[in-house]
Amino acid sequence: MRTLTLAVFTFLYSISLAEAADPSGANTYSDSVAGLRHSSNFIWVLFAAFLIFYMQTGFAFLGGLLRPRSMLNYLSHCLIGPCIGVLVFWLCGFAFMFGGSDEMAELTKGNALIGYSGFLLQGGAYDVVTMLMWVFQVAAATVALTIIAGGVAERIKFLPFLIYSVIFIALVYPIYGHWIWGGGWLQHLPFGVGAKDFAGCAAVHTIGGVFALLGAWALGPRIGKYTRDGRPKAIAGHNLSYVVIGTLLLFFGWLGYNCGSSLSATDLRISVVATNSFLGGAAGTMIVLIINYATTKKIDLPLVCNGSLAGLVAITAGCAYVPTWAAIVIGLIGGLAMMGTVKLVESGLKIDDPLGATSVHAANGLWGLLALGIFADGSYQNVRGLITGSHSQMIAQVIAAGSALAWSLACGCAIFFGLKHTVGLRVSRHEELEGVDISIHGLECYPVEIPQIEIERITRMGVRAPKEEIEIPGN
Amino acid sequence: MRTLTLAVFTFLYSISLAEAADPSGANTYSDSVAGLRHSSNFIWVLFAAFLIFYMQTGFAFLGGLLRPRSMLNYLSHCLIGPCIGVLVFWLCGFAFMFGGSDEMAELTKGNALIGYSGFLLQGGAYDVVTMLMWVFQVAAATVALTIIAGGVAERIKFLPFLIYSVIFIALVYPIYGHWIWGGGWLQHLPFGVGAKDFAGCAAVHTIGGVFALLGAWALGPRIGKYTRDGRPKAIAGHNLSYVVIGTLLLFFGWLGYNCGSSLSATDLRISVVATNSFLGGAAGTMIVLIINYATTKKIDLPLVCNGSLAGLVAITAGCAYVPTWAAIVIGLIGGLAMMGTVKLVESGLKIDDPLGATSVHAANGLWGLLALGIFADGSYQNVRGLITGSHSQMIAQVIAAGSALAWSLACGCAIFFGLKHTVGLRVSRHEELEGVDISIHGLECYPVEIPQIEIERITRMGVRAPKEEIEIPGN
Amino acid sequence: MRTLTLAVFTFLYSISLAEAADPSGANTYSDSVAGLRHSSNFIWVLFAAFLIFYMQTGFAFLGGLLRPRSMLNYLSHCLIGPCIGVLVFWLCGFAFMFGGSDEMAELTKGNALIGYSGFLLQGGAYDVVTMLMWVFQVAAATVALTIIAGGVAERIKFLPFLIYSVIFIALVYPIYGHWIWGGGWLQHLPFGVGAKDFAGCAAVHTIGGVFALLGAWALGPRIGKYTRDGRPKAIAGHNLSYVVIGTLLLFFGWLGYNCGSSLSATDLRISVVATNSFLGGAAGTMIVLIINYATTKKIDLPLVCNGSLAGLVAITAGCAYVPTWAAIVIGLIGGLAMMGTVKLVESGLKIDDPLGATSVHAANGLWGLLALGIFADGSYQNVRGLITGSHSQMIAQVIAAGSALAWSLACGCAIFFGLKHTVGLRVSRHEELEGVDISIHGLECYPVEIPQIEIERITRMGVRAPKEEIEIPGN
Repeated sequence: MRTLTLAVFTFLYSISLAEAADPSGANTYSDSVAGLRHSSNFIWVLFAAFLIFYMQTGFAFLGGLLRPRSMLNYLSHCLIGPCIGVLVFWLCGFAFMFGGSDEMAELTKGNALIGYSGFLLQGGAYDVVTMLMWVFQVAAATVALTIIAGGVAERIKFLPFLIYSVIFIALVYPIYGHWIWGGGWLQHLPFGVGAKDFAGCAAVHTIGGVFALLGAWALGPRIGKYTRDGRPKAIAGHNLSYVVIGTLLLFFGWLGYNCGSSLSATDLRISVVATNSFLGGAAGTMIVLIINYATTKKIDLPLVCNGSLAGLVAITAGCAYVPTWAAIVIGLIGGLAMMGTVKLVESGLKIDDPLGATSVHAANGLWGLLALGIFADGSYQNVRGLITGSHSQMIAQVIAAGSALAWSLACGCAIFFGLKHTVGLRVSRHEELEGVDISIHGLECYPVEIPQIEIERITRMGVRAPKEEIEIPGN
Repeated sequence: MRTLTLAVFTFLYSISLAEAADPSGANTYSDSVAGLRHSSNFIWVLFAAFLIFYMQTGFAFLGGLLRPRSMLNYLSHCLIGPCIGVLVFWLCGFAFMFGGSDEMAELTKGNALIGYSGFLLQGGAYDVVTMLMWVFQVAAATVALTIIAGGVAERIKFLPFLIYSVIFIALVYPIYGHWIWGGGWLQHLPFGVGAKDFAGCAAVHTIGGVFALLGAWALGPRIGKYTRDGRPKAIAGHNLSYVVIGTLLLFFGWLGYNCGSSLSATDLRISVVATNSFLGGAAGTMIVLIINYATTKKIDLPLVCNGSLAGLVAITAGCAYVPTWAAIVIGLIGGLAMMGTVKLVESGLKIDDPLGATSVHAANGLWGLLALGIFADGSYQNVRGLITGSHSQMIAQVIAAGSALAWSLACGCAIFFGLKHTVGLRVSRHEELEGVDISIHGLECYPVEIPQIEIERITRMGVRAPKEEIEIPGN
Repeated sequence: MRTLTLAVFTFLYSISLAEAADPSGANTYSDSVAGLRHSSNFIWVLFAAFLIFYMQTGFAFLGGLLRPRSMLNYLSHCLIGPCIGVLVFWLCGFAFMFGGSDEMAELTKGNALIGYSGFLLQGGAYDVVTMLMWVFQVAAATVALTIIAGGVAERIKFLPFLIYSVIFIALVYPIYGHWIWGGGWLQHLPFGVGAKDFAGCAAVHTIGGVFALLGAWALGPRIGKYTRDGRPKAIAGHNLSYVVIGTLLLFFGWLGYNCGSSLSATDLRISVVATNSFLGGAAGTMIVLIINYATTKKIDLPLVCNGSLAGLVAITAGCAYVPTWAAIVIGLIGGLAMMGTVKLVESGLKIDDPLGATSVHAANGLWGLLALGIFADGSYQNVRGLITGSHSQMIAQVIAAGSALAWSLACGCAIFFGLKHTVGLRVSRHEELEGVDISIHGLECYPVEIPQIEIERITRMGVRAPKEEIEIPGN
């Protein structure tokens, strides 16, 4: 048995090294300007990838908006989703996304619709440059997965979560990703310079957000979300300090995400990207604050937090292409788009999207794609929006936004309604009321213990000590 | 209307690109040693800036020392303050601070007292090197703002917070910042090499801490902070795990802050900066632990946390200039200075500074400036303190410390007492007792829900179900 | 007195600069490819060090698995441990570990067993390259210290914690560290290329984990952990959201830890290291999820979190040397090893290790060392495991694992049982039941306050106001 296992491993070893491109990096690096350029880019992309992965912690904190009895289950999505994503993206997602890409010479096979080389990171993909790309892209892909978790929170079964996560990372995300980043048709549109999406308004936010919407729709609203006459009720959450902390943490991660999307630190435009990201997020925050105060005389801080995130999503596509004043305009409109979409989804469509993934991510993902087409000033990579007097790039952006919307609606409906009518999506009424933490995890997120000292005190008062107590070892 | 909007945008576009210096970075970067030097510095400064911004999350966690009923309001300062700061620093703060600076050729206008070019990051400021500086400086500026939040917590109205935040970032911080970092008079003092402050003991910590003190003074103590005979009472806070986590997080961010203040990764002194930062923070922690234990036989962990922060503030000015043993001495004295100042402020001045901003930031900001004048060993940038036998640098440091104190006292008194006698500073007695979270935000930070399952159970026992419940959709 | 102090400082100054190597970095850096190579490596190593230090925050969050009445004390270990570590590692730990190292020319004195130069970072160690190494190594060393905190939580006195921390960082960790990283005998074994441990399976995880086990053993189980007939009872913890957040945060920090252990960003293998770290952690997570669900029909999320950490520990030694498929195999076995060890320790040895440090760190530290000897594919630094058909490296790995185990068992027994029979290890029964937060810190971690407004209301109903209330100042 042990010999057999080792034989299998030795076989795997022999094929994996056979056609490896540059697994050690020794051929890619040289002690020269060209070598150091690689070194700079490796530092930049790896740290950015780590910050993107760290955004999962930020999303986890946003669970403060949920009831405590389903917090643990939401957190399970935040932890397990990325882990599934890592394994599936290694298995095939990356190959579908970047096969035949312009950027990695070793990944030769792919067409305008899908790639198909680099599976299991074997063969030519056992290469330091290819794996650098993998690390960045897997971190980004799993962010999209966690966006969905916000829409389906508090009521989804565990099996459908596992299934949609696998399909999403294996096919849905990579195929669209291939179109816009992996050498696919959107990149080669005959308008402007082809569709542009600097840091993922389309693939990550629009598609993730639409999936959250469809998941929430297929599941139906949480018990108690709507009154009998259909008016939505606010569900207060359980820890709003988590929400603010999660927002600040996401803001931090986002800076890495947007700036790192240059995939290069020799592209000095990254400082403009950072500036625009700060301004977009700040503008989204302030407009929601102002409008919220003007209409209610209060400052609904969780809503303001969603304003920050809305501004950040809105600037994600265009952060590299627009001037700073436009970043502010984009963030302002992003905040407004978020507030409008909350109303539309909650009161209009009567869909219960607990963390507002639709309004933050889907609405502003689309807005961000179009905003790039309006405000790109031509100062970078010759991307020219309407303000330069050119309409061509805007056409590409509309096509990118439209195709992201169509693709995610089609895939999302198929997956969520398919699951609903096969394995089932939603836990039972009893399980939901009791809390999915108990039914799925057998645990409470915030256990309460009867202090042993209380038992002591009772004991001293003549009551029999509980049997399970043992003696303290001599010390 | 739409045409008009676009026309305005197009106009903005045309002026913003007119005199742009190097908005794409293509002229600054070249595939050469000089280009890669830029690339290294961009990576270094951007990541450091992100870590500095992330310190907001650490400050947010320190709110565990407050009562839960005003936690959300404190968190609103931690989120909204930086967003205001970003917009105002873009509008004018940066221009006042770095106009006419020695470091950015494009920002030509400024004198020894104030700068005046780079407004809105337009014109010559639309440049990758200038924006790199902006990103770093805006992150640092907004830290100062959040220091103030600790002093005014639990009782300030929202409008005065907005107003002082705008004025602070528009004028107070940039003007002093110009003096010490932007080419102003403190940098050109005829003593030593001019006043030195590596990572912001003066501009960030002294000025922020003094503002916190003055804000707390103008507001008056929280109800219940002092007994009728004037003795201070400890207010226990609500979550001390937040406080420790916040301290660890700030320690992490501080490493980025201090090291990144080199503004360059080709300046290899950064490893000494990191070493000294670790040692200063650790020394501050341990001295407070020891003295606290020696006097009380307990280890007051929140106080020890403030010892860490005190040590970190104390080493902030000198971290690049002093030898490692001196970093320990500076941290030790920093911890002592913090403990002494707590007593002075709380029992002597009878000012209620909830998070100890005065003792951590103001006292140690000043000490840090002077410590540099004592311990700088001349091994870096020829900065020579008293231990080298030279008195000249110390004079510059005393002037820097004195001017920081005078400037912040003058501005802070004007602002806080001005606000007190116009829009008013403090919420009503009822609002404070109820908690500002309710009066300002209409929310509780930690909402408690009557579990629906309880309602179910009651229903089953014959009690009428609450009307607002709707049916669960078929699944 | 002041003159005397200054005289002492001036003397310290004169000796510290006397033989300094390159304290400013000006000799090490030059505006050339060689200079920029340094710059890249400084950026990489410093940021990695900061991320490693940030792991303390992750460990702090894991305290959610403890009872709230001893949370604060656990957090005190997470904060104070690293601070002690920083000071002791500066004093002597670093000198014992890297004296005579191959990597730093200035640290000349040392033999195969121990180093002895670089004390207090004085003399030749006042050098930017040496201090870069110090910063990275001190961050890693203090992680080992915090691993121990998980084993001794909820019942250890403060003094023995201080003592073992000092001894651990002064001697235990540095001596083994010297053997495997500082030029000692394990590095020069005549098998394979000598023992290899990329990011600390031996020094950090095995030794830290074994210390946690021995500490927990010497202390004895917490009151209530075992029933009278010796069956272990689950202790629920108090905040499982902390546990998931802590795990995500550690995952993030680990990426920096593993990748940064290249100590160089011109070694482009770092992207493979990152890929393998992601895969190992994800595989550990998923296997625990699957087995846990298969056996209990529930998903015990804290156990799954330990699966993530187990996978990450398991891949720590080999992350640079193995192909991606092997990283998954290593992570899977890591998760299994963790689950098996939990059973062994808890039910077999009846040792109460509250955070599972033994199963996560010790078991997987050892497994990781051996896994490198199995799966290293020879593509990097010519390290060849069994799968390449060579047995030589495996012998070196077995020796490294065996010596780590022997060294930590010997030192740990001596220290913990020595302390037990001198100063005593464990708090009294009453203190433990009341919670060590009260007895050691005099504080509750989560204070509850009787809202002042309640007192108001009572007052209004005719009851006398409490005396200690003062008037609110006019506003």
